[in-house]
Amino acid sequence: MTDVVTAGVLVIGDEILSGRTKDKNIGFIAEYLTNIGIDLKEVRVVADEEADIIAALNALRQRYDYIFTTGGIGPTHDDITADSVAKAFGVGISHHPDVVERFRKRFQDSELNEARLRMARIPDGASLVESATIMAPGFWIGNVIVMAGVPSIMQAMMDIVAPKLRSGVRMLSESVRANAREGDIGTPLREIALANPETQIGSYPFRDEDGNPNTNLVVRSRDPDKLRVAMGAVQQMLAALKR
Amino acid sequence: MTDVVTAGVLVIGDEILSGRTKDKNIGFIAEYLTNIGIDLKEVRVVADEEADIIAALNALRQRYDYIFTTGGIGPTHDDITADSVAKAFGVGISHHPDVVERFRKRFQDSELNEARLRMARIPDGASLVESATIMAPGFWIGNVIVMAGVPSIMQAMMDIVAPKLRSGVRMLSESVRANAREGDIGTPLREIALANPETQIGSYPFRDEDGNPNTNLVVRSRDPDKLRVAMGAVQQMLAALKR
Repeated sequence: MTDVVTAGVLVIGDEILSGRTKDKNIGFIAEYLTNIGIDLKEVRVVADEEADIIAALNALRQRYDYIFTTGGIGPTHDDITADSVAKAFGVGISHHPDVVERFRKRFQDSELNEARLRMARIPDGASLVESATIMAPGFWIGNVIVMAGVPSIMQAMMDIVAPKLRSGVRMLSESVRANAREGDIGTPLREIALANPETQIGSYPFRDEDGNPNTNLVVRSRDPDKLRVAMGAVQQMLAALKR
Repeated sequence: MTDVVTAGVLVIGDEILSGRTKDKNIGFIAEYLTNIGIDLKEVRVVADEEADIIAALNALRQRYDYIFTTGGIGPTHDDITADSVAKAFGVGISHHPDVVERFRKRFQDSELNEARLRMARIPDGASLVESATIMAPGFWIGNVIVMAGVPSIMQAMMDIVAPKLRSGVRMLSESVRANAREGDIGTPLREIALANPETQIGSYPFRDEDGNPNTNLVVRSRDPDKLRVAMGAVQQMLAALKR
């Protein structure tokens, strides 16, 4: 098992960039990947523009182990993800016979129009990401997994794909509420971070229920012993503050 | 006035990529920029890693008119945005005298530690993004605007910066609920999109209050006449469905 498996996410959609739709997929995928031992390293959001999708996809897929895309696989003219992915990989694209077959069972002839058939267009060599409850499948080609933009469908697709993903040693995480202002603990926290190189220590300020500035501290490591040592140092530092 | 002014957003923070914190800034900035006539073209989310921040920032700032960053300007060791931005621009960084002066008024000597002074580190040549209610300022250097990650502070910073931004002709938008399945309107909608090249027509499926598949259609254009013509065609197409 490799220690670290990395991922990138590519969100495709004008509606996210215009602010009309607020993305809910980034946070879900981020948490999901963390839980199964894959490190999400980068997210990009691009418009429904073929050149932008191809450029972002090619940059990401060369850099990370897996790329997850969301959006742009529906039946309308602005759904251009499948064609863009095919071009990024330099492969052809055509109506996938299994998908067409399923559509024939599901739709009457009058409903099986050009638009709906568009959802059966799958790049050559891709595997389908499908289930009985998903009408338009996602697909997997190379290290790229193409999913729907509608959160409930995307989430179902993640569940289908997850068991097939190679995963690394899971990043472990512990957090503590500091009951202190970030500025009061920043100096000793830096020393703890420097003394514990195989951990990541994050500091997140927030306003607590009394409206006072407070801080959550999060220690992360793949090594449970190193996590324990670093969190011990953080706890000791916080206890010393109260004296 | 230029017709189109573009922007990129760079979200900086391990906590977004781990899924621990769900980003609320992308959607806010997207909507804000749309409302003031700036086109958000791309978003990237990167970790608290200097090389990643610099690479993303340099890619974005060469491509778009404005870049907005969020996160990483607090007092702790994981706040490395200011240093990364200085390196991306190849300029020095030091404690800004105005910020230090304000901190001296605000904090007692015992509180003005190395961590808090870190928030006064501003790249050489940058202008401050500040107000009486913002403790740690953001800054503006070249075409890059560096803002806090805490949503309420980031939002206050957008309000300070917005009047100074060059803006383009505002993208106008109208939407209509189709009361139809996306697959039933995809074919005629494509024809309307092709016939109305200076508009963008988006199709967004959703489940309506009866649980039925439904679709929102959005027509966008900078030209009110072209918007009206395209939306008229969409309305006509929808009316024809019902006959």
